[in-house]
This record gives sequence, structure tokens and C-alpha cells, in this order.
Amino acid sequence: MEDVIKRALELVVPSKEEIEIAKKAEEELKRRLDDALEDYPMLEYRFLGSYARNTWLRGNLEIDVFILFPEDTPMEELEKIGLEIGKAVVDEYELRYAAHPYVHGKVLGVEVDVVPCYKLKSPDKIKSAVDRTPFHHDWLKDRIKGKENDVRLLKQFLKANGIYGAEYKVRGFSGYLCELLVVFYGSFLDVVKNAVKWRRDTVIDVPNGKVYRKKGGSFFVVDPVDPKRNVAANLSLDNLAKFVQLCRDFLKRPSLDFFLSKEFDLDEDAFRRENRVVVVVAFEKPNIVEDNLYPQLEKACRVVVNNTREFQPLRFGFTADDRCYLIFEFGIRELSRFYKHMGPIFEDEENVERFLKRNEKVFIENGRFWAFKERMHVKPNEAVADVIKKNWQGMGKDVGEKLREGFEIYVGEDVLKIESKEFRKKLAEVLCIKRPSS
Amino acid sequence: MEDVIKRALELVVPSKEEIEIAKKAEEELKRRLDDALEDYPMLEYRFLGSYARNTWLRGNLEIDVFILFPEDTPMEELEKIGLEIGKAVVDEYELRYAAHPYVHGKVLGVEVDVVPCYKLKSPDKIKSAVDRTPFHHDWLKDRIKGKENDVRLLKQFLKANGIYGAEYKVRGFSGYLCELLVVFYGSFLDVVKNAVKWRRDTVIDVPNGKVYRKKGGSFFVVDPVDPKRNVAANLSLDNLAKFVQLCRDFLKRPSLDFFLSKEFDLDEDAFRRENRVVVVVAFEKPNIVEDNLYPQLEKACRVVVNNTREFQPLRFGFTADDRCYLIFEFGIRELSRFYKHMGPIFEDEENVERFLKRNEKVFIENGRFWAFKERMHVKPNEAVADVIKKNWQGMGKDVGEKLREGFEIYVGEDVLKIESKEFRKKLAEVLCIKRPSS
Ligand SMILES: Nc1ccn([C@@H]2O[C@H](COP(=O)(O)OP(=O)(O)OP(=O)(O)O)[C@@H](O)[C@H]2O)c(=O)n1
Ligand SMILES: Nc1ccn([C@@H]2O[C@H](COP(=O)(O)OP(=O)(O)OP(=O)(O)O)[C@@H](O)[C@H]2O)c(=O)n1
Ligand SMILES: Nc1ccn([C@@H]2O[C@H](COP(=O)(O)OP(=O)(O)OP(=O)(O)O)[C@@H](O)[C@H]2O)c(=O)n1
Ligand SMILES: Nc1ccn([C@@H]2O[C@H](COP(=O)(O)OP(=O)(O)OP(=O)(O)O)[C@@H](O)[C@H]2O)c(=O)n1
Ligand SMILES: [Mg+2]
Ligand SMILES: [Mg+2]
Ligand SMILES: [Mn+2]
Ligand SMILES: [Mn+2]
Ligand SMILES: [Mn+2]
Ligand SMILES: [Mn+2]
Ligand SMILES: [Mn+2]
Ligand SMILES: [Mn+2]
Repeated sequence: MEDVIKRALELVVPSKEEIEIAKKAEEELKRRLDDALEDYPMLEYRFLGSYARNTWLRGNLEIDVFILFPEDTPMEELEKIGLEIGKAVVDEYELRYAAHPYVHGKVLGVEVDVVPCYKLKSPDKIKSAVDRTPFHHDWLKDRIKGKENDVRLLKQFLKANGIYGAEYKVRGFSGYLCELLVVFYGSFLDVVKNAVKWRRDTVIDVPNGKVYRKKGGSFFVVDPVDPKRNVAANLSLDNLAKFVQLCRDFLKRPSLDFFLSKEFDLDEDAFRRENRVVVVVAFEKPNIVEDNLYPQLEKACRVVVNNTREFQPLRFGFTADDRCYLIFEFGIRELSRFYKHMGPIFEDEENVERFLKRNEKVFIENGRFWAFKERMHVKPNEAVADVIKKNWQGMGKDVGEKLREGFEIYVGEDVLKIESKEFRKKLAEVLCIKRPSS
Repeated sequence: MEDVIKRALELVVPSKEEIEIAKKAEEELKRRLDDALEDYPMLEYRFLGSYARNTWLRGNLEIDVFILFPEDTPMEELEKIGLEIGKAVVDEYELRYAAHPYVHGKVLGVEVDVVPCYKLKSPDKIKSAVDRTPFHHDWLKDRIKGKENDVRLLKQFLKANGIYGAEYKVRGFSGYLCELLVVFYGSFLDVVKNAVKWRRDTVIDVPNGKVYRKKGGSFFVVDPVDPKRNVAANLSLDNLAKFVQLCRDFLKRPSLDFFLSKEFDLDEDAFRRENRVVVVVAFEKPNIVEDNLYPQLEKACRVVVNNTREFQPLRFGFTADDRCYLIFEFGIRELSRFYKHMGPIFEDEENVERFLKRNEKVFIENGRFWAFKERMHVKPNEAVADVIKKNWQGMGKDVGEKLREGFEIYVGEDVLKIESKEFRKKLAEVLCIKRPSS
């Protein structure tokens, strides 16, 4: 174990060069910020996030700078000036969206986020999630001292296994959550050792230093800065389970593997051989951010699943690159055209009469009337197409709109005609037919 | 209604010629019996059943003669001498089986049953069901006077609709039950008018002149000669329901049709068009009587249905002529090779470990582990064949033995290669695709 951790540290601790580059960029950025803020005497800036706390992951350098506005600034002004300053201080920029739009760009080649927020006296007055960030930093900055590399180990452990990040596409652990856990338990290994006992209703009460269960609740990590807020709110149940199981496996057989991202692809031979009942819906990606797109894709999938129950949906998945892909696997390849429709018991004269009027192919079984009826669809792809045509309005605003405009359906081996790498990986995951790839 | 009944009576009341032929046969039979019984002074004979009570159905003349043995006769002697006498008094004979074997044959061209039974003082000492028959006759003979043709109407109403007879193949109304109902309610039409209110738990207490419901019980007609015995014991729930509905229909729209047997056949065009998911098992008929064969066929069907649940069995049926036929309709034409096998919740470390050892293609869903597994059969016919090969021992002694020796499976249109009329009618019934035939 010690050896594994030693080698893992080499992976996660930034190199001297990276640190030097960061320092230079930081200095340059400060100069530019001082310049830019000259016209705005009531504003100040702070370096927050993982760079400010020396907890960023080797090779993932990104400097977070927050522009603090007085509490009484109108929202529009904050946004407008925030972007102006952001644009002024980075070399090339793009807009990103969190609580407010913010600027993401580069300074001397280093990634930089410039995020506007309010400067508050207490975190219970926050207007949007980013306003908590200065408080997060204040709470963490001393407590994390000496544990920076443990944070990095945990981030890499999560990242290599696809569950680092609170964004909707990942639904995993945010950087802040990693830091809190390391502070709470003391080290990376202590987090791992304790996580194996986590349950879906575990509460990690950081401000009070306690762990307990809340029957019927969800996994909850109390934000020391705002005890009502669950820092793990975006962590999905299944990613929690995945992490717990990874911790068990790691403790049983420690290995550097747990810190290495495993590239994989679809095993085409297995896919052909297994002849799974797969239906894929492909359509144009709406022009919205991922955190908005992915929930809509999931919603669309759930509507399909809930309306194709008679084909026994087994699993679903979704992903996107320049197109969107919904993946469904079913337990039934083909239904009979006919099904049994239940009628009243024979004693119920009045309802029997009505039932006989409205149905053909009626028969009696176990003392009640039944009728054979014909279903619309006998194959799952027919049903999927029909559900989308009828229910696109319930499939998310933007995704629904795109689905209304059109979509393609792929079945069985035809699915292999889709070349998207993103898609093939997701398909491999849903069907459990991955193939390692370099 | 009156007109319908008048015309129905023409169908059911025996012609003068039939009565004359019967009389002659009866006289001849009496002569022969007197002769045959000369050597057995302790025996006597009685004319019982529908001929003795003048309630037989036109064209269905059959004389029932019972040979009454002293109570202390050993069973073997009764059977031996009973058959001897039977053979001696009829022109041509065959053996049939009720409680004991008995002789069925002809006298002057008229069908005759010669049945041995014990002569008892009271019906609560009976050794076998046939010993009740003399008591039935004694109870009915005066009560039925003047109502003979009502009995005939009821028998024909039932017969035309396939539910006359208590034998297992029919599971309908026995002749004795018809007579009791007419005595109890007063006339054919009164039976019909009251039957529309029958429920599955109705008790018709003939000896006490009452009708009531017994929650959780079955339809029960108390034998006035033996109050523990349910005269309707062999009437199936579904044939009860069918009768009740026929009575409603008849009262709403009286028609001679209700008294006319409807010949029908399979509608081949509909069968081809509807492409039902039908599986038929055909095999050699074991050499046993129908009342023994049919329960075994039903049992075999139920074993198949109970072991092919994943293909959603919709209906089954069975019939036999020189071969036996089991008919199954399914709701699923083809399953996927893969299904989801449920594992433990993620918290249950010990069981998770075991689950991971025993399964491949494992994934987490909703906080628990699952695995994809492969099923043996993806089509219902494969499953049916497999169930029979593995479970023939649970499919009735004689039917099971024949199934073990071999069977054929027909699927879809291949089923039409089976020429048996019995089979085709049963198939039409199971699938509700009858075609009227002349
Ligand atoms: N889901 C999130 C994302 C961000 N933050 C706050 O915003 C800061 C910066 O966010 P980000 O750059 O996304 O995370 P880092 O903690 O800097 O981690 P990383 O090393 O991944 O950049 C975090 O420290 C945290 O205070 C948060 O509270 N919740
Ligand atoms: N389980 C059932 C189904 C039906 N009925 C009776 O049969 C009539 C017709 O029902 P059904 O065949 O289901 O036709 P609809 O309800 O009109 O059609 P659907 O179910 O396809 O909407 C009902 O009004 C009711 O009186 C009943 O008593 N019990
Ligand atoms: N399931 C049966 C069959 C027969 N019997 C008795 O045996 C007699 C003769 O039987 P059978 O010939 O089968 O019936 P019938 O009443 O004569 O009617 P059918 O006109 O059909 O011959 C019946 O009257 C009845 O007393 C009975 O109790 N239960
Ligand atoms: N719902 C389940 C299924 C399985 N297990 C655990 O996983 C182990 C393996 O179970 P399974 O995959 O079902 O294998 P077997 O029971 O051996 O095989 P089968 O079910 O096909 O008989 C079980 O002993 C049990 O410890 C569990 O906890 N909960
Ligand atoms: Mg309905
Ligand atoms: Mg098991
Ligand atoms: Mn950051
Ligand atoms: Mn950031
Ligand atoms: Mn960038
Ligand atoms: Mn008879
Ligand atoms: Mn008889
Ligand atoms: Mn005969």
C-alpha cells in the first residue's frame, strides 16, 4: 500500500515546471486584474478554488479567480461588469455558465476561470451558489494545510474511475467535496477506509464532526459553511455505490491501477455474437450547455422506458458529442400481436354486457371475461419511435424540440454504423461489453 | 319466448317411433334379465336413469339398468358377476368404466348400460358413487312427474352449447343435476330465470328448499339423497359462468339457436393472418379412458404453463382423438438471450463479494448490484420442449410416460399440418378464431 501511494503521488503532485508556469501566470493575472479593477474601486478579486489551496491535480492546472461585488450591486450589473473584467484579463476567452455566466480563458497558456460573485458577510445571505465559494476557501485554507496531496490522491482515484466532478454528465464528487472529506477523515487512506462503511443514508456532519444515518434520507455531506447544503447533492446513488466498492477493492488489493484511467472501447465481436436487443435513437444536439443537456437526455430516456414497459426495458444510457444518442436495451425481441385484456367477473351482469359490446374474441377464464386484443407494436424499436413521436413534449425543452424535428432509430447490428466514439463507449458501458483500448 | 319453447320441444321430445322402439327394447331386455338372473336369486335389477324417468333426450335414447347386489357381496364378485350378466343380456358389448367396470351394449339396436351396484338401506352407507343411483331415482321419480319435458329442454340447451355431461372432458351439467334443478325451480324457464343470479359461491340446498351464498365456497348443489355430496362437483367455474351468461342472453333475445348445436371449424385464413404465437405438442394417446386421460392432459398443460412464465402464456387447451394435443398460446414470440439478475444492495459487503465472484457483466443500478445473464431459451417452443423433457414425470402417469417416449412440436403455420378435426376445433376455441361449418 505504501508503495502504491508513493507511486500514485508521482502521478498527482504537480511538477516543478507546472508550479513555475502557474506562478508566472498568477503574477501576470494579478497585474491585469489590478489594472482592470482600477476603474472599479468598490470591487476586489480573490484567488479561490484548488489553485489557491494548492490542491489542483497535476496536469489539470486551472486558476479560479473570483470578482467580489458589493451586496447591493444589481444582478445585471454584476454579470455585465463581471464578463467585461473577465474578457479584459484573459488572452482568449469563452463564456461558461454556472450560477451566472462567467469567463473561461487563458493567461500565459494557463486555464483561468474568472467568476463574478457577491461579497457577503455571512453565507446564509447568499444569492447564488458561487457566493459560498469565498467562505469555502476561508473554512478550508488552514485546515487543508499539509493534506494537499491527500486531496490530490483522492481526486485522481475518482478521476481515473470516471466519478470526479459534480457536473451532471458525471454526477460524481466535486473538488470541494474531496477537500472536505480529506479534512474530515484526515487523509486519503482514512477517507477510503471509512468509505467502505458508507450507506445510502449516511450523513457526514462536517461542522459537528459526526457521522450518523438518517433513515429515508440520502447520502449527505453537510457544508460547514451552510449546514443546510448537501455538498454531495449531485453525487448519484450509483456513483456513491461505485466509490464504496472501489474503496473495498483498493483496500483488499492495493494497486496503482486504481489511479490510472482505463481507456476502453466497444467489443464489436461480442456485440455481434450476443445479438442484444438494442435500440438507439440519434438526433441533432441542441445548442445548450452540458449541465442543461444531460438532464434532458435522461428525462427523454425515462419517458421512453416508462412507455415501453411491455418490452421489458433492461437498461438505458445517453451521451452526446455533435449529436445526441439515447441507448435502450430490452428483454423482449418480439411480442405477439395479441394480448389478453381483462374484463369483469361473470357475476357482474351490467359490466359483462358492456364488455361484450366493446370487445370481440371474448372468452371466459377462471370465472371472468377476457378478450384478445391487438397491440400496435410488436418490436421495441417501433414502440420507441412511437413514444417519441407522441411524447417529445415531455422530453425536455430543447431535446424535445430536436426530437420533434427528427431522429434516427438504429437496431441490432445497424448500431455499429454509428461512428461516434462517445457513443460506442457508452454503449459498451450499458451492455457490459467493453474492450480495453490503448 | 313461448314460440321458441314450443319449437324447442319438437327438438327434444322423443318421437312416437323412438318411444315404441324403446318399449320393445325394454321388454326384450327384461326378458333377458329375468333369464340371466335365474341363477342368482339374491340379485335383482332396476331400470334407473333418464329412460326410467322418461327424461331422455330425443335421439339420445339409452337405457340404464342397474344390477343390485346384497351389501355383503365381495367387490370382486360384484364386478365379475355384474359383467357376466351384462354380457349375457346385450347383443354386442364393450366395457366401460365408472366406479366399477360395466357393460355398455345394444338390445334391439338400443343403447344399454348394465351397471352393477350394491343394494343399500340408506345412501349414507354407499361404497361407490353408483350405489346412490337407486336413491336418486326414488327421490326423483314422483317429483319429476309432469316436468319431464322441462328436463329435456334444459339438457338440450346445455348440450347445444357444449356443457351437458359431468365427464371430465366436458365438466358440465349431469343429467341428474338437470333433473334436480327442474324439480327445485319448477320448470326449464324458471331454472334459466334464476340462474342469471347465480354466483360462484351459490349453494342450492335442494333438501331444504333454500338458496344461499357460502363465502369462499364453490357452486354447490346439495344432493337430497346425500347432503354432503355436491351434485355440481364436476361443473367447472368457467362452464358455470358460460351457462349463466347463456341464460342472460336467452332471456334477452330468446331464439331456437340456443337449442341448436353450432358446428364450427378453424378459420385458417384468420389463423395465417393473425400469426399467433402458438405452440402445439402432439403425441401418442395412452390407452386409458377419457375421464382418466383428460385430467392428465390438463395437468401436463399446467406444468408447461408454470414453467414457461417468462414467455407470458396466454391460454392453453388440450384434446385427443387417436393422438393427444396440447395447445399453448404465448404473449412473447422471442426473448432476448440476456436478462437482468438481481444482486445485493451495495452496502452488503459480504454478499457483494460473493456476487462479484459468481457473476460476470456486473453493473450497479439504483444502489444495488445486477448482472446480465444468458437464458437457455429465447423462443417459447424451445422452452416447451425443454420443460417436457425435464418434467414429464409430473405430467400424469400415462401421459407422462407417452411424453417421455416422444412428442412432436408444431409452431405457427406448421400447426395447420395437423389434420385432426378435434384438434382444429380446440385450436379455434383457444384462439377465438372459429369459422361456422356445415
Ligand atoms: N459543484 C461545485 C463546484 C464549485 N464549487 C466551488 O467553486 C470552487 C471552484 O470550483 P472548481 O474549479 O470547479 O473546483 P476546484 O475545487 O477548483 O477543483 P479542481 O481542482 O477540479 O479545479 C470550489 O473550490 C468550490 O468552492 C462548489 O462549491 N461546488
Ligand atoms: N376489467 C374490466 C374491464 C372492463 N369492464 C367493463 O367492460 C366495459 C368495456 O371495457 P373495455 O373492454 O376495457 O373497453 P374500454 O374501456 O372502452 O376500452 P379500453 O380499456 O381499451 O380503454 C367497461 O366499461 C366495464 O363496464 C369491467 O367491468 N372490468
Ligand atoms: N355423474 C353422474 C352420472 C350418473 N349418475 C347417476 O347415474 C344415473 C344414470 O347416469 P347417466 O346415464 O349418465 O345419466 P342420465 O341421468 O340417465 O342422463 P342421460 O339422459 O344423459 O342418459 C343418473 O340418473 C344418476 O342417478 C350420477 O349420479 N352422477
Ligand atoms: N439478490 C441477491 C443475489 C445474490 N446475492 C449474493 O450473491 C451470491 C451469488 O448469487 P448468484 O449470483 O445468484 O449466484 P448463485 O445463487 O450461485 O446462482 P443462481 O442464482 O443462478 O442459482 C449469493 O450467494 C449472495 O451472497 C445477494 O446477496 N442478493
Ligand atoms: Mg377499459
Ligand atoms: Mg442466486
Ligand atoms: Mn478549480
Ligand atoms: Mn473552476
Ligand atoms: Mn480552456
Ligand atoms: Mn342415461
Ligand atoms: Mn348411462
Ligand atoms: Mn354404444
